[in-house]
Amino acid sequence: MTEYERIIDSVFESTSQLDDKGNLATYIPELACVDPNLFGVNLTTVDKTHYSAGDSDKKFSIQSISKVLSLALAYSTKGEKIWERVGVEPSGNPFNSLFQLEADGGIPRNPFINSGAIVVCDILLSTLDNPKKDFLEFVSNLGGHHLEYNISVSESEKSVGFRNIALCNFIKSLGNIHNDPSEVLDLYFNLCSLEMTSKEVSESFLFLADKGRRFSDSQCVLTTRQIKRINAVMQTCGFYDESGEFAFNVGLPGKSGVGGGIMALHPNEYVITVWSPKLNKKGNSYKGLSFLEQFTTATKDSIF
Amino acid sequence: MTEYERIIDSVFESTSQLDDKGNLATYIPELACVDPNLFGVNLTTVDKTHYSAGDSDKKFSIQSISKVLSLALAYSTKGEKIWERVGVEPSGNPFNSLFQLEADGGIPRNPFINSGAIVVCDILLSTLDNPKKDFLEFVSNLGGHHLEYNISVSESEKSVGFRNIALCNFIKSLGNIHNDPSEVLDLYFNLCSLEMTSKEVSESFLFLADKGRRFSDSQCVLTTRQIKRINAVMQTCGFYDESGEFAFNVGLPGKSGVGGGIMALHPNEYVITVWSPKLNKKGNSYKGLSFLEQFTTATKDSIF
Amino acid sequence: MTEYERIIDSVFESTSQLDDKGNLATYIPELACVDPNLFGVNLTTVDKTHYSAGDSDKKFSIQSISKVLSLALAYSTKGEKIWERVGVEPSGNPFNSLFQLEADGGIPRNPFINSGAIVVCDILLSTLDNPKKDFLEFVSNLGGHHLEYNISVSESEKSVGFRNIALCNFIKSLGNIHNDPSEVLDLYFNLCSLEMTSKEVSESFLFLADKGRRFSDSQCVLTTRQIKRINAVMQTCGFYDESGEFAFNVGLPGKSGVGGGIMALHPNEYVITVWSPKLNKKGNSYKGLSFLEQFTTATKDSIF
Amino acid sequence: MTEYERIIDSVFESTSQLDDKGNLATYIPELACVDPNLFGVNLTTVDKTHYSAGDSDKKFSIQSISKVLSLALAYSTKGEKIWERVGVEPSGNPFNSLFQLEADGGIPRNPFINSGAIVVCDILLSTLDNPKKDFLEFVSNLGGHHLEYNISVSESEKSVGFRNIALCNFIKSLGNIHNDPSEVLDLYFNLCSLEMTSKEVSESFLFLADKGRRFSDSQCVLTTRQIKRINAVMQTCGFYDESGEFAFNVGLPGKSGVGGGIMALHPNEYVITVWSPKLNKKGNSYKGLSFLEQFTTATKDSIF
Repeated sequence: MTEYERIIDSVFESTSQLDDKGNLATYIPELACVDPNLFGVNLTTVDKTHYSAGDSDKKFSIQSISKVLSLALAYSTKGEKIWERVGVEPSGNPFNSLFQLEADGGIPRNPFINSGAIVVCDILLSTLDNPKKDFLEFVSNLGGHHLEYNISVSESEKSVGFRNIALCNFIKSLGNIHNDPSEVLDLYFNLCSLEMTSKEVSESFLFLADKGRRFSDSQCVLTTRQIKRINAVMQTCGFYDESGEFAFNVGLPGKSGVGGGIMALHPNEYVITVWSPKLNKKGNSYKGLSFLEQFTTATKDSIF
Repeated sequence: MTEYERIIDSVFESTSQLDDKGNLATYIPELACVDPNLFGVNLTTVDKTHYSAGDSDKKFSIQSISKVLSLALAYSTKGEKIWERVGVEPSGNPFNSLFQLEADGGIPRNPFINSGAIVVCDILLSTLDNPKKDFLEFVSNLGGHHLEYNISVSESEKSVGFRNIALCNFIKSLGNIHNDPSEVLDLYFNLCSLEMTSKEVSESFLFLADKGRRFSDSQCVLTTRQIKRINAVMQTCGFYDESGEFAFNVGLPGKSGVGGGIMALHPNEYVITVWSPKLNKKGNSYKGLSFLEQFTTATKDSIF
Repeated sequence: MTEYERIIDSVFESTSQLDDKGNLATYIPELACVDPNLFGVNLTTVDKTHYSAGDSDKKFSIQSISKVLSLALAYSTKGEKIWERVGVEPSGNPFNSLFQLEADGGIPRNPFINSGAIVVCDILLSTLDNPKKDFLEFVSNLGGHHLEYNISVSESEKSVGFRNIALCNFIKSLGNIHNDPSEVLDLYFNLCSLEMTSKEVSESFLFLADKGRRFSDSQCVLTTRQIKRINAVMQTCGFYDESGEFAFNVGLPGKSGVGGGIMALHPNEYVITVWSPKLNKKGNSYKGLSFLEQFTTATKDSIF
Repeated sequence: MTEYERIIDSVFESTSQLDDKGNLATYIPELACVDPNLFGVNLTTVDKTHYSAGDSDKKFSIQSISKVLSLALAYSTKGEKIWERVGVEPSGNPFNSLFQLEADGGIPRNPFINSGAIVVCDILLSTLDNPKKDFLEFVSNLGGHHLEYNISVSESEKSVGFRNIALCNFIKSLGNIHNDPSEVLDLYFNLCSLEMTSKEVSESFLFLADKGRRFSDSQCVLTTRQIKRINAVMQTCGFYDESGEFAFNVGLPGKSGVGGGIMALHPNEYVITVWSPKLNKKGNSYKGLSFLEQFTTATKDSIF
């Protein structure tokens, strides 16, 4: 039994027994139906060894974790030009988001808040021939999986997504959306609805830990410089208003989603994915954060 | 000639020839008098090897770099309790600072913006017997140096420091300053006026790269967990509204000061200090940032 | 020749010769085509005497002046209940509007900023059988005119109205829009496109100066208490971020529109309407403001 | 018995029996000691008739009502120039105040919020030979009274006035305070501590209802144009974040203070002063507002 195996098993057990103070994301009807007790972990190393625990083979809605993938595809296609349309700074408290957008002339603070991800979708729409299909292909090829959007989730989000509609039209009014807002939002909601297992997430994101080489065939999808930059942005901006806290407590770059998933990575070492659906007040998985904090405390391998 | 030596020399030369678009900090009369062409670099490894270039033995006003030292002293004295008084989240754009303070009930977002550093000074005032003397001793002992405050700089800042007086009284009105605001500010302005050479900075901060062990005698001043946390906060918050940019371009935790100094570190490897007085629009050394970006591009050793 | 006649003629002449520093509203293509030199004035007293000057019989797009009419119709239909959905406080600088909406839980500060007028449209949609038709009838009956929406203006606004779409969806996300946002906006853009002459405006709004009695047949459309309240809200909120300035310089309750119209009234005395299409930086008619300031200076009859 | 007498008596009785849901201002120790059941009313007409009820001859701390007097003195001394240093627009919600100051380059929105009154004090300091003495003389001469500052109140406020210290230093940092902040604040706190009876307030402010002529000797202290302008600013800005509400419910220009006093006036008719110490959540006298709302409902003489 290796060190990682031992620590994952031990932390998984102690976290499982935790009184989960989180709550399911209820604003999206479809997400409110998920079994709140599911809990899966997978760690995949750059030499492709897997360590798993719990429900690591159950699909879940990756939601905002997909924002890293859309950024990666836009970055690989358009290069450094994308940074003219979206920033790399953390956003401060959520209350300020619309205000900051106006002050910054429609340039979202970073690609991992909703406004930024919407602009990235606008870039993809202008760039790809078949945006939804091409994105799905890009992501499926990263890990060699067969992935699908969950249409009922994306429709569910669209039906209550007034704030995102507001955001997209507001940015349009400031000149930083080039396509029809409803098309941009359609792509955005589809990307969020992507479903993967914890293991598939680890495999798909391995390129960020492995110098840009994807899991499926070791082909480079991004340069070393580019993946370092994505990792840096995840570190400072990956957890909304808890990004500083995550760096402080866990010490790895990562990204969370309201489906309860968290993906984190140790450069040149591994990707670790934890999934537990109940969220803390800031919208991040309660058990997921707890697991990762204990995990890097035990392994002592934060990047700092 | 080692790799570091070669790269430092080469980047120093190319950066020296750069058309420096920065400007001296003019709001503090004393800082406006510094020779703008001074430029020094020092890298000190955890095995105490030095690599220097330019004016690395010239003293400069470390200004906000001292915020890391006051945090370290408060952290070592009071432990995790300090985080009840100051947060660990980046602050978004500077425009929001007073507003966020009010929304957060007087808890500054992090210890590296002025409001946070003022609260840390308040903690030190309540904790230390002779705050100014004890702090100077703590810092001098880190690297085994004889250090001094520059009284004319601290007086100079105090005479025009209306915004910091406003900040301190505002936090007092919100209940998060326990001492007399004028005493807190007196300590604050003194700490900022500390003067060191680039080499002294690298040596003094080596404990953050070396598991908490100080340069002078390898004694542990903070635990590994504590220095990882300080490094994480520097990564997300160390460069005001350019923190994301620094993570993105340089990829190391660090801290800047309006005196033109930047200290950055690679955990378990080295501390590197660059000093050049002219600042970009966001208040960080123009040449310093350029040097560090080229340096980590050449060495490829960012933490991401 | 009466006093009013003499003053109107004299001020009209001096204002006509003014170097008009304003600019046409260009964000709505249709409004950008208006002849910028048109200038009309009409004063109608409660005993139905008219004083006119210039192009007082030319139709213009009343734009936001219609916000008073939609408020009046909602108020007469639903009574004091409407104030649960919209406030009566001025809004501070425009930068804050979205932020204030969020802080106030989706309740717009007042019915004369766009967010408030959109909520009033939502109330009308829930209340009226044929909202567009019923509103047109209500307004036509006030002065006994035959009025029409200008469909090309409303379509023109809709095609570039991303910020209003954002506002409406944002309020919907906060729970204060009950109907489909696109239907609410459709009504909103129609109401703004109403066209009247200066004389028709004065006649239509006479009920606000005449204890609630409309011009056409002296029937009461609102109570004295209600019209006093509408006048009070116009006084504090009728000119966006220039409401204080208008109270200060002119001293009458009133409402402006980006079509260049301004309607102001002296309770129990008269309604005065000025129209000149070029706007100052805050979106109010440049000549219109100047005319009214000189007019009340000459007549000395502000309400203060 | 006149109409006013009858209405005042009747409204006084019904208001007296009201369950007072307000609370004493507790942040200033001295104000927290006032008998909460005191309740006085005085109406003084421009022909110098008085109508009183309850404790109209008891002194109370006029607090922010004094802001109108310092404005009047500055306006009479420096003329229209004062508007270069302070605006005439309402301020939106209180949360925004510091933010708006920064956005507006240190120019407070109006003279009746604390920041604006502090700037007015700075103007007086630069203008008057003996600011405290000259101001007291100016005010005493308005109504022919012998008035005094309450030093224990001003000292009490100074000892807890951290937010005002913050404000003053913040404006100083933005360039709109010309004197030493501590001297400006000393004057400010003294002005707020002025004590008057309800009757003395009505008499002192009669010049605002009587074309600028003071009560004591009918001498003009301000022009008609100037008092119209002050009245207009009171109407739009006199009750903090309840200014719109006051215009809406009462319909007269006026000004409140945290001592529980409210002064309101009907141009060319009368000044009415109500005092009851318990405040609603927005800092205005609970019974005072209720009295005035019923009073103008009964008299039907709002200005709108």
